[in-house]
Amino acid sequence: MKTPEELFVYNCWYNAGWASEIEDGKPLARTFLEKPVVMYRGESGNYVAMDNRCCHRAAPLSLGRIEGDCIRCMYHGMKYDSEGKCIEIPGQDLIGENFVVPSYPLVEKSGMLWIWMGDSELANPDDIHDYAPLSDPAYVGLEQQIHYDANWMMIIDNLADFSHLAFVHPNTLGGSEEYAYQSTHQDIEKYYNGFQWTRWHKNSAPPPYHSVVSPEGEAKVDRRNVVTIYTPGVFFMETTFAPVGWDPDSGDTDKVREYRNCQFMTPETRSTTHFWWCYMRNYDLDNEATTISLRDSLLAGFMEDKVLIEQQQVLLENSEPFQPRMLTADRPFMHFRKVWDRMIKEEREKYPRKEIKIRNAII
Amino acid sequence: MKTPEELFVYNCWYNAGWASEIEDGKPLARTFLEKPVVMYRGESGNYVAMDNRCCHRAAPLSLGRIEGDCIRCMYHGMKYDSEGKCIEIPGQDLIGENFVVPSYPLVEKSGMLWIWMGDSELANPDDIHDYAPLSDPAYVGLEQQIHYDANWMMIIDNLADFSHLAFVHPNTLGGSEEYAYQSTHQDIEKYYNGFQWTRWHKNSAPPPYHSVVSPEGEAKVDRRNVVTIYTPGVFFMETTFAPVGWDPDSGDTDKVREYRNCQFMTPETRSTTHFWWCYMRNYDLDNEATTISLRDSLLAGFMEDKVLIEQQQVLLENSEPFQPRMLTADRPFMHFRKVWDRMIKEEREKYPRKEIKIRNAII
Amino acid sequence: MKTPEELFVYNCWYNAGWASEIEDGKPLARTFLEKPVVMYRGESGNYVAMDNRCCHRAAPLSLGRIEGDCIRCMYHGMKYDSEGKCIEIPGQDLIGENFVVPSYPLVEKSGMLWIWMGDSELANPDDIHDYAPLSDPAYVGLEQQIHYDANWMMIIDNLADFSHLAFVHPNTLGGSEEYAYQSTHQDIEKYYNGFQWTRWHKNSAPPPYHSVVSPEGEAKVDRRNVVTIYTPGVFFMETTFAPVGWDPDSGDTDKVREYRNCQFMTPETRSTTHFWWCYMRNYDLDNEATTISLRDSLLAGFMEDKVLIEQQQVLLENSEPFQPRMLTADRPFMHFRKVWDRMIKEEREKYPRKEIKIRNAII
Repeated sequence: MKTPEELFVYNCWYNAGWASEIEDGKPLARTFLEKPVVMYRGESGNYVAMDNRCCHRAAPLSLGRIEGDCIRCMYHGMKYDSEGKCIEIPGQDLIGENFVVPSYPLVEKSGMLWIWMGDSELANPDDIHDYAPLSDPAYVGLEQQIHYDANWMMIIDNLADFSHLAFVHPNTLGGSEEYAYQSTHQDIEKYYNGFQWTRWHKNSAPPPYHSVVSPEGEAKVDRRNVVTIYTPGVFFMETTFAPVGWDPDSGDTDKVREYRNCQFMTPETRSTTHFWWCYMRNYDLDNEATTISLRDSLLAGFMEDKVLIEQQQVLLENSEPFQPRMLTADRPFMHFRKVWDRMIKEEREKYPRKEIKIRNAII
Repeated sequence: MKTPEELFVYNCWYNAGWASEIEDGKPLARTFLEKPVVMYRGESGNYVAMDNRCCHRAAPLSLGRIEGDCIRCMYHGMKYDSEGKCIEIPGQDLIGENFVVPSYPLVEKSGMLWIWMGDSELANPDDIHDYAPLSDPAYVGLEQQIHYDANWMMIIDNLADFSHLAFVHPNTLGGSEEYAYQSTHQDIEKYYNGFQWTRWHKNSAPPPYHSVVSPEGEAKVDRRNVVTIYTPGVFFMETTFAPVGWDPDSGDTDKVREYRNCQFMTPETRSTTHFWWCYMRNYDLDNEATTISLRDSLLAGFMEDKVLIEQQQVLLENSEPFQPRMLTADRPFMHFRKVWDRMIKEEREKYPRKEIKIRNAII
Repeated sequence: MKTPEELFVYNCWYNAGWASEIEDGKPLARTFLEKPVVMYRGESGNYVAMDNRCCHRAAPLSLGRIEGDCIRCMYHGMKYDSEGKCIEIPGQDLIGENFVVPSYPLVEKSGMLWIWMGDSELANPDDIHDYAPLSDPAYVGLEQQIHYDANWMMIIDNLADFSHLAFVHPNTLGGSEEYAYQSTHQDIEKYYNGFQWTRWHKNSAPPPYHSVVSPEGEAKVDRRNVVTIYTPGVFFMETTFAPVGWDPDSGDTDKVREYRNCQFMTPETRSTTHFWWCYMRNYDLDNEATTISLRDSLLAGFMEDKVLIEQQQVLLENSEPFQPRMLTADRPFMHFRKVWDRMIKEEREKYPRKEIKIRNAII
């Protein structure tokens, strides 16, 4: 079986969830890249993340008590500062130099948390793939989360080719099957850390999720999706519904509806994935029914994906090795896969895996 | 851990269930020999079986749509003909030669489906162990199914020695414990692909399952079981209850009651088994209460076996390796085990295992 | 993965539960050291233990029938005497010499059962760590049992350092956090098979479990715990609550309350543990409400440990190898761990692991 280091890149920012998921005074246990982490907000307002295993006996720090920006393990009372250094041992004065829990930079941007699981010296918050619409008052949406019993890369694969909308989501996000036949990815751009494509579907019935809330009630629209995916699991999409024949370069915004969508897939383990998302719109901002309707439509669509992708996971795990066949439409994903493999390889060369030699185990 | 090829023979017909289990227009997912398969009935009436993993991304074809005798994967819309060849890719004209899903001959006989998991060129439906009473109007019974959390070979082992009736089934299929002491297997015949034995229990109280429905209400009977077991997991039994002193060669059928029983054990995985069965009789054919009573009695008996056999499985899996001891009564089973091992060996020599080298994995 | 022989010592007495758990005429299945065992009380009153796998087909003897001091497998009726020797095979006269199930000495002392999983020639009941208060009418308590989804050694680790009372059990067994800072283990004695320590906490508020039942209603007490732990998982504790300033050598017992506590941790598997316990007191013996209150308080405390320890187990199993750091307070546990490792090593040298070569498997 592959080691985590052969599966994951460590020196990059992973989305760690919504800041609103962290309650004041309450540590939160969450696993990233198969490593159990505890996250909390210190009394200074700073966010803190470290291994969830007390260095003494691997007791869960997530059962611990926040004291200032520190956390106290509630097994034998060892206290750690926000960098994971043990600063108090009840009943013992001397604290060994190696009484330390690995800690991780944890940064908030636009209401989301980002964690750096690698060398903290290399962590630069400017590299975070912050999504501007999340903090733009022109857009409104709801902070959402689901969980996948599947490898994160299959969700990337799903998002990299929208042909599946025609077959998986005809009654939610897609529309007719025609979408798969008549529209294709255009303007594919490959980045060193991801890709972008545009997909037009012109003069077509709008998909159900839009038509049930659209103030226009259009029979036909021109629909444009611009998808950008970055490593690790960062997905951004700009969606435009415009009157048939609309010229995007015209600057005309009359009856043009814009959506902004971000989705973050962070590996929990090799076979499970955290998934945070927010679907936003730029119209009827105060109409809560529309907000709820869009959230529910998107969620229904994501559940259609989830059923299918989790079955893929089972089919890949429980039978002989699977050689996938690639379609033309898979070029963006193949590029992403290649980028990821290169990043792992480069990181492994720079930071060879350290063998952990246990001198005295508990069990 | 052994590979599936070290555990199973592929070039033989396995029972795949009752044809009635397949609903019109609805693909059915079922695993055989640790391989996930999709089965369906095409619009022509032909039965189709192929790997349940779309060659593109291993999406489950069992979530797909039947079109004529073809099936369309409802992920990206790839369409396969009844031999597993991809014949349409939405949005792409070219279809690679290797866009194929392995398919398997699937044949219906006497209301049962039979699948050939090996080289389809070798598949000859004449080799199927069809059970004549299933399509003989002189017999009536119900199509039944149960599922075992145990290796199929332990069910064969169970069926190969009826001494267990005395201890496992005294209140259902057996009768008194005397059965184990006073009757033994006779006329054991070894076949190249199985065995047969006869077991008489003369002048004895009939077992409960018979006595509650028998029109005679006999206090004592002569009971004869003739059991035949073939590879892979095919079990046939002729059971006769006759007046004490009956001469089977006499041709006398007065007050002689006949049962016909077929059971099919098909490995789902190395530790789980499909089990289809039908228990038939040749009297009171229209009496539905008798039909139900016999089904319920047999099912109660099978549940007694299932509890025990599933505990055997746990005991074999969760402790040190187990060296079984063989009894005289185990000769038929030992022959069967030897036949199976020889078949695997011969098949492996003819068809050495192909290493699957994955060029580009998804996950 | 380590073999059971690398994890466990076989030639010693393990606690096997309360004798009262064995019902007359009913075999009990229980796993010790990853080996499935059946235990029963023969009609002579003797206790019997042997492998739970019939030598024929690994059928569970726990589904069998007790006949005298023998047990009959209810699959094919093979009968075993109390030493595991097969003495009857229905329908077969000859019984092979190797038709034997390994059996284990099983002895009752003070209402508890003790099993010897190693070489029965070496088993001497005098070596059993019998706990005298269990059969002393001056003490009263209830026979209790819980089950841990964790390696037994982590429970030893928990019990070896009472600093955790301050943080895990402040509202049940502990009291204030001061306990961790102001009291330490004293008079640590290392034995070749365990250790003992004493811990005083003077002039302090009594812990909730005592104060709610104490006839005195003391505001402050001197509290003394004397803990002894022996291999394998034997824990004894004498607890005294006395008026502040009490001199233990004075012989003064006025308003001095004594508790006696035994706990037995027997490995079921490497990741699960049997836990039997009894908490006894020497006052108000007839007051059932006090008996129940103490049982409930202790159980509440044990559940606090269990939540934490089972999370430790998950954290140790599901992430990279863990190097524990040792505190001064861990000296007793470190000694215990060293003793155990030495015992395993010595036993492995004397009794090298036998390879089991299977000639003819069932499955």
